[in-house]
Amino acid sequence: MNIQDIIAKKRDKQKLNKAEIEFFIKEYTNGSIADYQASALIMAIYINGMDEEEIANLTLAMAHSGDILDLSELGNVVDKHSTGGVGDKVTLILAPIIASLGVPVAKMSGRGLGYTGGTIDKLESIPGYRTDVSEEEFIRNVKNIGISIIGQTLNLAPADKKIYALRDATSTTESIPLIASSIMSKKIAAGANKIVLDVTYGSGAFMKTKERAQELADTMIKIGKLANRKTVALITSMEQPLGKNVGNSLEVIEAVEALKGNMADDVKEVVLELGSNMLKLAGKGDNLEENKQKMLENIQNEKAYAKLKELVANQGGDVSYIEDTSKFKKAKYILPVVLESEGIIKELKAEEIGKISVFLGAGRIKKEEKIESEVGIVLNKKVGDKVRSRDIVAYIHANDEEKGREAIKRLQEIYVVK
Amino acid sequence: MNIQDIIAKKRDKQKLNKAEIEFFIKEYTNGSIADYQASALIMAIYINGMDEEEIANLTLAMAHSGDILDLSELGNVVDKHSTGGVGDKVTLILAPIIASLGVPVAKMSGRGLGYTGGTIDKLESIPGYRTDVSEEEFIRNVKNIGISIIGQTLNLAPADKKIYALRDATSTTESIPLIASSIMSKKIAAGANKIVLDVTYGSGAFMKTKERAQELADTMIKIGKLANRKTVALITSMEQPLGKNVGNSLEVIEAVEALKGNMADDVKEVVLELGSNMLKLAGKGDNLEENKQKMLENIQNEKAYAKLKELVANQGGDVSYIEDTSKFKKAKYILPVVLESEGIIKELKAEEIGKISVFLGAGRIKKEEKIESEVGIVLNKKVGDKVRSRDIVAYIHANDEEKGREAIKRLQEIYVVK
Repeated sequence: MNIQDIIAKKRDKQKLNKAEIEFFIKEYTNGSIADYQASALIMAIYINGMDEEEIANLTLAMAHSGDILDLSELGNVVDKHSTGGVGDKVTLILAPIIASLGVPVAKMSGRGLGYTGGTIDKLESIPGYRTDVSEEEFIRNVKNIGISIIGQTLNLAPADKKIYALRDATSTTESIPLIASSIMSKKIAAGANKIVLDVTYGSGAFMKTKERAQELADTMIKIGKLANRKTVALITSMEQPLGKNVGNSLEVIEAVEALKGNMADDVKEVVLELGSNMLKLAGKGDNLEENKQKMLENIQNEKAYAKLKELVANQGGDVSYIEDTSKFKKAKYILPVVLESEGIIKELKAEEIGKISVFLGAGRIKKEEKIESEVGIVLNKKVGDKVRSRDIVAYIHANDEEKGREAIKRLQEIYVVK
Repeated sequence: MNIQDIIAKKRDKQKLNKAEIEFFIKEYTNGSIADYQASALIMAIYINGMDEEEIANLTLAMAHSGDILDLSELGNVVDKHSTGGVGDKVTLILAPIIASLGVPVAKMSGRGLGYTGGTIDKLESIPGYRTDVSEEEFIRNVKNIGISIIGQTLNLAPADKKIYALRDATSTTESIPLIASSIMSKKIAAGANKIVLDVTYGSGAFMKTKERAQELADTMIKIGKLANRKTVALITSMEQPLGKNVGNSLEVIEAVEALKGNMADDVKEVVLELGSNMLKLAGKGDNLEENKQKMLENIQNEKAYAKLKELVANQGGDVSYIEDTSKFKKAKYILPVVLESEGIIKELKAEEIGKISVFLGAGRIKKEEKIESEVGIVLNKKVGDKVRSRDIVAYIHANDEEKGREAIKRLQEIYVVK
């Protein structure tokens, strides 16, 4: 078997068999296949596609290219994954709720990249919170308190990492076979046997339309079936940012507020939809409405909030920040954003908000870059809201005044009022 | 401008403009664009194609990626190029004929690679013949005696070299836009303003069918037009090897015999077709039949043969080998190939013969490999010939007896007799 023949097959729209896909992943991971050969194959996959069986084989080969986390001793572990968004603090809210209802949460999360944020960056804004814990400690934490959220410290799906980097540099990111296999390979390697997917669409998501998101969701559900991982996918809008705050500690603060009962409607909808399905997959009840009620109860009685504090304390974080979020370091400048126009807000593009947030220092363009936890954007008004002239629609949290001024201008342009 | 956007355009079947193609070639040649980005773009070109304007722009950008030979002081230089073959000694015969008729021949030739031979390897089997002469000496030789054939010593079309190497490793060779631009960029860089192309098809050629060869020929003619190079293309069969001998000194010997009037019919046809067109392009007469007569005359009166000797002497070669070809070193073993069957030879696949020749040591798989000048195959019988049982159909010239025996077996299988 050689890579040229495999490339030629896909180039000619033929189906690759399991052995060919495994050969590619194995030899590319160990460096025998060059990047320029992998990128030619990936472009051929992008253009000519893959069928479900090929995608499932690619997913499993990538999942098995590195460590596979064994979570079997924890029982029914349900993982949740979002395909990315702006202001998406769902994991911070959802995970404690689910754990408080007795479903073990063993979650490896990512960092933000590009204009989308990452749960790990957000958690690290809590002083002391350790995201780089060992596999043993991770599993012990889940056993002891029913929840742990850590960064991707293990060598999970290294083939996916290599291919992902290549895709970014070769304009081959927006391919359903490649996105689906990338996500699912990491989920499988991370040890979950049940997976709830939040497939986002719109300005702030990989998939720009609902139809493409549905296609991606269907593909991942089929991979899940072929890989024996029960998978549920929900389609959610990411036209505008989720919730009120965009930025790392700002989103932690919003999550804490949410667990204390003060949750934005759009966030609540996503949290309840995902959570009720996770509970169902975990065998905690087939009635989604009842599941939602249980979740709301554990917000009401503050059990979910208590679980968040337990999580933070258990991973070395300073719980006093959760108890009193005013302790979080504030950005140097908190600047109001005022609109001149009057009417209804028609559009507030998530991607643009994400970019402003990165510009302020909340995210990174390149992996190595440092972020500033405290900067970001607080949105007072969102799509559908009425504004009168001179209303403050948002606040920019900036450490650099000039950047803050620039961010105001950019944000004013993004608010479409009619 | 950035390479990701250029890749994305071609990925989405859009047309690349001149500036984009020039950016790609320039930045890839200087190393700013990575191999894996170039290979993704090349795969997209392979699958989605290019129109004539794009191919012409690609050709000119590659031609200008390195030195451009200035042959203007030599007048009407007509170049000839074959898209490759087995037993193709046409240049060795044609060039002296054309030069003897007063058309300057300033030819840079290649080495053999894969199963096809190269003129430079063949010329180097003549003791002393120097193929690595400077640009100045090259032009001086043409001025003094009307002919020079050298290797590709200059930095001609380095972008093509890089892309060619990549294509080989990524299964993107058989693409008309890529083949056409590769050939034409080298011809343009080599300074010819008039080009005669021998586009081969069949088992021993890149293009497996006559239709694909015609398509390639048409593409190159259009590039020539857009690049202001008068271009003529002939389509010739390379189903079976051309002429009688395959191997380096063996082909020189056949070429000398041809110039002394003893030329195989298939070789003669190609030589006369190409030559009559070259004479026409050089302004030596519009009537192709008359041009052929002039060529035959100069074989008859040995002026072409004399020109070959002049070429060899002028480049340091030992002319006594041309005057007495029995002086060429012989292979250790000259082994007859006998067939058991009787009938008419129906097929004798050029590609397979080329591969046996390489196996014997006449060619190379990798660029660095050394070749053995004296080994090869002499074909007594070719397609259309009758054979009786126990006829000697060919001779294997080998330096290694075991390889020779193996070559006999392989050759016996290639002769299809019915």
